[in-house]
Amino acid sequence: MPKNMHFNTQHPVFGAHACLTLGFPGARGGMDLERCLPPNQQILVALETADAPGEYEALPFIEAESHKELMRFISDHGEIWPHSAKRLTPWALEDVQRDFRLATDSWQAGDLRFTLYSPIGDVPDPANGDTTALVEALTPAVWAEVFVDNRKGHSSRRVAVGMSGLDPYRGLRQVAGDDGLVGIAEGAHLGILTREPDAWVGMGMDWRDILGEIEPASRTYALGSLGAICATVPAGEARTLRFAFCFFKAGQITTGIDTQYYYTRYFNSLEAVAQRALDDFDVAVERCFTANKRLDESGLSDDQRFIIASATRSYVFSTQLLEHDGKPLWIVNEGEFNMMNTLDLVADHSLYEMQHHPWTIRNVLDLYADRYCYEDEVASPDAPDRKYKAISFPHDMGVAGAFSRPGHSSYERPDLTGCFSYMTMEELLNWVLTAGLYFTATNDSSWIASRADLLEHCLGSMEVRDHPDDSQRIGVMRQDSSRCRSGREITTYDCLDHSLGQASGNTYLASKTWAASLILERLLGLLDRTDAARRARLQAERCASTVVSVTRPDGRIPALVGGQSQGVLTTVVEGLAYAWFGGVREKLSLDGPYADYLKALGRHFTEHAMRTDTCIAKDGSWRITSSNANTFPAKIYVCQFVAERILSLPVEKESRVNDAANVAAITHPEHSYWCWSEQIKDGIVYAAKYYPRGVTSNVWLHRN
Amino acid sequence: MPKNMHFNTQHPVFGAHACLTLGFPGARGGMDLERCLPPNQQILVALETADAPGEYEALPFIEAESHKELMRFISDHGEIWPHSAKRLTPWALEDVQRDFRLATDSWQAGDLRFTLYSPIGDVPDPANGDTTALVEALTPAVWAEVFVDNRKGHSSRRVAVGMSGLDPYRGLRQVAGDDGLVGIAEGAHLGILTREPDAWVGMGMDWRDILGEIEPASRTYALGSLGAICATVPAGEARTLRFAFCFFKAGQITTGIDTQYYYTRYFNSLEAVAQRALDDFDVAVERCFTANKRLDESGLSDDQRFIIASATRSYVFSTQLLEHDGKPLWIVNEGEFNMMNTLDLVADHSLYEMQHHPWTIRNVLDLYADRYCYEDEVASPDAPDRKYKAISFPHDMGVAGAFSRPGHSSYERPDLTGCFSYMTMEELLNWVLTAGLYFTATNDSSWIASRADLLEHCLGSMEVRDHPDDSQRIGVMRQDSSRCRSGREITTYDCLDHSLGQASGNTYLASKTWAASLILERLLGLLDRTDAARRARLQAERCASTVVSVTRPDGRIPALVGGQSQGVLTTVVEGLAYAWFGGVREKLSLDGPYADYLKALGRHFTEHAMRTDTCIAKDGSWRITSSNANTFPAKIYVCQFVAERILSLPVEKESRVNDAANVAAITHPEHSYWCWSEQIKDGIVYAAKYYPRGVTSNVWLHRN
Repeated sequence: MPKNMHFNTQHPVFGAHACLTLGFPGARGGMDLERCLPPNQQILVALETADAPGEYEALPFIEAESHKELMRFISDHGEIWPHSAKRLTPWALEDVQRDFRLATDSWQAGDLRFTLYSPIGDVPDPANGDTTALVEALTPAVWAEVFVDNRKGHSSRRVAVGMSGLDPYRGLRQVAGDDGLVGIAEGAHLGILTREPDAWVGMGMDWRDILGEIEPASRTYALGSLGAICATVPAGEARTLRFAFCFFKAGQITTGIDTQYYYTRYFNSLEAVAQRALDDFDVAVERCFTANKRLDESGLSDDQRFIIASATRSYVFSTQLLEHDGKPLWIVNEGEFNMMNTLDLVADHSLYEMQHHPWTIRNVLDLYADRYCYEDEVASPDAPDRKYKAISFPHDMGVAGAFSRPGHSSYERPDLTGCFSYMTMEELLNWVLTAGLYFTATNDSSWIASRADLLEHCLGSMEVRDHPDDSQRIGVMRQDSSRCRSGREITTYDCLDHSLGQASGNTYLASKTWAASLILERLLGLLDRTDAARRARLQAERCASTVVSVTRPDGRIPALVGGQSQGVLTTVVEGLAYAWFGGVREKLSLDGPYADYLKALGRHFTEHAMRTDTCIAKDGSWRITSSNANTFPAKIYVCQFVAERILSLPVEKESRVNDAANVAAITHPEHSYWCWSEQIKDGIVYAAKYYPRGVTSNVWLHRN
Repeated sequence: MPKNMHFNTQHPVFGAHACLTLGFPGARGGMDLERCLPPNQQILVALETADAPGEYEALPFIEAESHKELMRFISDHGEIWPHSAKRLTPWALEDVQRDFRLATDSWQAGDLRFTLYSPIGDVPDPANGDTTALVEALTPAVWAEVFVDNRKGHSSRRVAVGMSGLDPYRGLRQVAGDDGLVGIAEGAHLGILTREPDAWVGMGMDWRDILGEIEPASRTYALGSLGAICATVPAGEARTLRFAFCFFKAGQITTGIDTQYYYTRYFNSLEAVAQRALDDFDVAVERCFTANKRLDESGLSDDQRFIIASATRSYVFSTQLLEHDGKPLWIVNEGEFNMMNTLDLVADHSLYEMQHHPWTIRNVLDLYADRYCYEDEVASPDAPDRKYKAISFPHDMGVAGAFSRPGHSSYERPDLTGCFSYMTMEELLNWVLTAGLYFTATNDSSWIASRADLLEHCLGSMEVRDHPDDSQRIGVMRQDSSRCRSGREITTYDCLDHSLGQASGNTYLASKTWAASLILERLLGLLDRTDAARRARLQAERCASTVVSVTRPDGRIPALVGGQSQGVLTTVVEGLAYAWFGGVREKLSLDGPYADYLKALGRHFTEHAMRTDTCIAKDGSWRITSSNANTFPAKIYVCQFVAERILSLPVEKESRVNDAANVAAITHPEHSYWCWSEQIKDGIVYAAKYYPRGVTSNVWLHRN
């Protein structure tokens, strides 16, 4: 487990693009609704000190005392609130113990324990009609318990849970209606609410002013950016108080396609969310325990379980279940970059989604098929003026809540050779690979049948991007899309280096091409498209044999089949995971039809990638490519699974060292502010912060 | 006119709590929707340099070039967009001329002129059914023209208008539908739109990337926080392009009382706002010219007209016309403090509203009467255990979009003697004074009749706050509200000093008491409540004679009737404006029944307040009190009117010097970032920034 336990993590809500981020010291977490970075909100969890009335201690998620805000009002002439508490001190970090798990997170200090519950697990297809389970999963709340042990106390002690305001447009407000709810909310869209019978809420400019309040007459005061719910634990008693951190956003959520949150079918206000969340408290806790148990009993190492817990939370935060024209619309947002359903990531996330909510995969594939699929051309390499039609899918569906135009991503543009160029071949493969995962998870034959033509078009486009002339095909993409104009196609690794970032001839992309071809062989076969299935198989065979044929005598597989690159890639094996989970696991037999390819990959991996002068960094973490220290842990997680589980390579030791290095990086005392992140360079979080892709680590849970 | 013309001002939308703030150099203005401070957004208005294709100049509202945002994506490996413009330079400040008026604002540089139109004027009562005029007034847009003179140019020149993203939750998006609209928007809630036939929109991370774009194929790119609409001015031509800066916010706007914007009756999207705004462009321009003309031809000095233009804009920005249960609900928000319908300010703003939309006054008075009026007690000074019932109104209706609980403000709390204590007497007077203004403006007898009991209760409460025993009354408030508990009542000048901030015995408050008593005498008389009218008159007479009686032999009126304060107040005359505008102007005759009071006030003002060792600061600005350098210009504007116009005091010279000092302060090269502000100390903006109250300056327009 990590040395530093004071890291940020998201306590997420499924499908609400919302979480309570907490763990990093100071006002560095908070209730994040669509913000995609820690909101830097203060979260107060305070307890009156034993036998020191008017003195308080709090978890270290507040700011140092300040009267700055007060001074803005009182100018020259003001006075300190006469009922202010005497003292409020955060507990020292070393006095705070934390128990961090997949779906629960708990801090213990002094006589207080604060536990957050954020259920993670299966979510039923809304079309299936299991409304109870659906509403449980979609309730936009994080459940919180404060346990105070005052059994040895000689006086009653006040306990408080609160937050600072964070929205630049909306102020805090007190919730104190006649429905039993008491809380502190911001606008209509988020807040902390409770039904504890003695609870009351106060606002102010200094926590001490609220904590010290003695009279209900002051509790209508509503200036200041701080608000807290207070209650009392009598002397000689222990008490558990329950709160719900709730979110509720009504109205239009996205542009381009006009949507609303799916949960607004079931809730019409923040208060309604809170009532349901508090009603369902035990159910939520139980769902959390179930999720924890599954991971804790998985047999995985502490580091592996830590990675899964941390990364899965970041993924769940990024999810958005919306509704358009009465039908669900699923988005996974891309962390700090905030692009929507980025198709590279869809393929990654589907490795998790196929286990817990495969219907979201279909939802995304359908939107890509119906709105975003585009036609482009590739030129004949022999006669550049001769053009061949092909299809593919764009890189994403938009950014920051704005759906892009049909057929276009927000990311891609012409005349470039690196970042922001087109990922035409890679996204074509990603759609096919993801379709394979979906069908394997669901056996949804009617969906496959409805997409039969599209699947065959995908195959045809893979072929023509290899070579328009069947006799010259090698199973590897070489022809750039006409959308690139003077530029050239890239891969998802665009920012790493030119050889890996180039799509044409790429051996990383080859592994995905191989898996996609096998998946198409299977699906088209099931659809009785025998000839197409045969063509797909032929492409798989060509691909495998091309990679084998370009392997250097020393076993190194070059990054580009025709290139001079000396770089060594770990990710040449990545695509195998899609064959494994995409229904063609038998092709991965080391004495089967692709044995040469698989053995070549294995040899490359162990003899060339697993070296400290290539893809193993000083801290033991695995790199994507020997030519760049910037690594993508979520992709490495998949490669680890392929190496250990699929290819049965002897890399157990190196893999566990990588895990430890990754845990150290994502719990770094400074950079763990960003929760789970996907670009790490020499142990330092570098970019792609607050990122969903690490959910790929869940493949480790597949032990058979 | 000011030396520094590069100051921020709000180009406001009536009733939408929205404006385009612009004028301060750099990314220091922007489209402000409910934010209540300059959003620090870049506004691009750029023109390709004559005979230098690919080079651009822009108005100085953008930031220095930066690739910071790009680096976040491309990490190690990226390239500059190959079509990027060569150069983008803001024009030097000294090369930019500005023509600033009440409803238009125009910047000229090189061959470009950029003009903003934000109509200001009468707004019909929605109950009257003049929908055309109402929709014109409520259209949430600011109109913009870009005039480019390329008549001497030898090549066509690209012109661009754009903005940077500013919302932390929502990204920019391109508007390019099939309805003729082209624009750059943020979320569903704001944007710049046009119907210029050749316009297209681009996005990016550097303005130069957008300006340099050559191909429509790139224009789907949607990353980056910058977006601009581009068009072309052919060689040899001059061209005027029209844009609308539009706002549209759907759904719930406030909590406590659930409201939506009234304009959502007429518009269902940002695009619908833009269509109407562009349709109505000529109408909007005409409305602006009418508003400008009225002010320009008023005979007021340049400084006075500048103050009115600047302050009125700030007020209009702060207005919000909402709808609740099918009926209009009016809010004026309190600048950076953002409290709602602060009752001190309601009395000030009504001096303007009575001229242009008196129905908003009634709207606020009704909400105060129906939801916020509260009952308190005052103790007998002779027998503190004996309590007397009274009524009043709280300081405000809430803050930052959160309506406070019935009967309570967000601001007031017990046990204080300064800031945040209760303003019970002052708010009671403010309600009465404002009712007087409303009736004078409208002659709405049925409304007065409907509030007859309340008016009489107000009188009774004024009496009992003076003294429960009629025989001991002196016409001046002396008994604090029971809501203060151990504290004491304050006035709106709470932050200045203890003597002025104290309500009890306050001679500033006496002037409002005198005016309120006269207004009650008139209204209750019209309502045939003869005895009550007589009692009101008695209180007015007592008040006047008390102030006269405490006047020192040298003519100084002390701040407190019973106090030892040596302070000199300018604001002892403030209440006279309410008698003037509240329908009892005849009482202000210098040879009428209150001649002694009025003469005492005049002598105090000229001999004691108008001195450089008391209320005239070094820069010539007038102070509220000799004991504090922090002054409130909006209140001084009223005092200037009272001194010059009502009391005919010989203070013309001092008044014009004050104007000049005030203009200098609100155009200060640094502090004019905050637009019009209401607390200024030694020429420096101090607090109460971005504030609506300066609209009181419009009283200067009343010359007869």
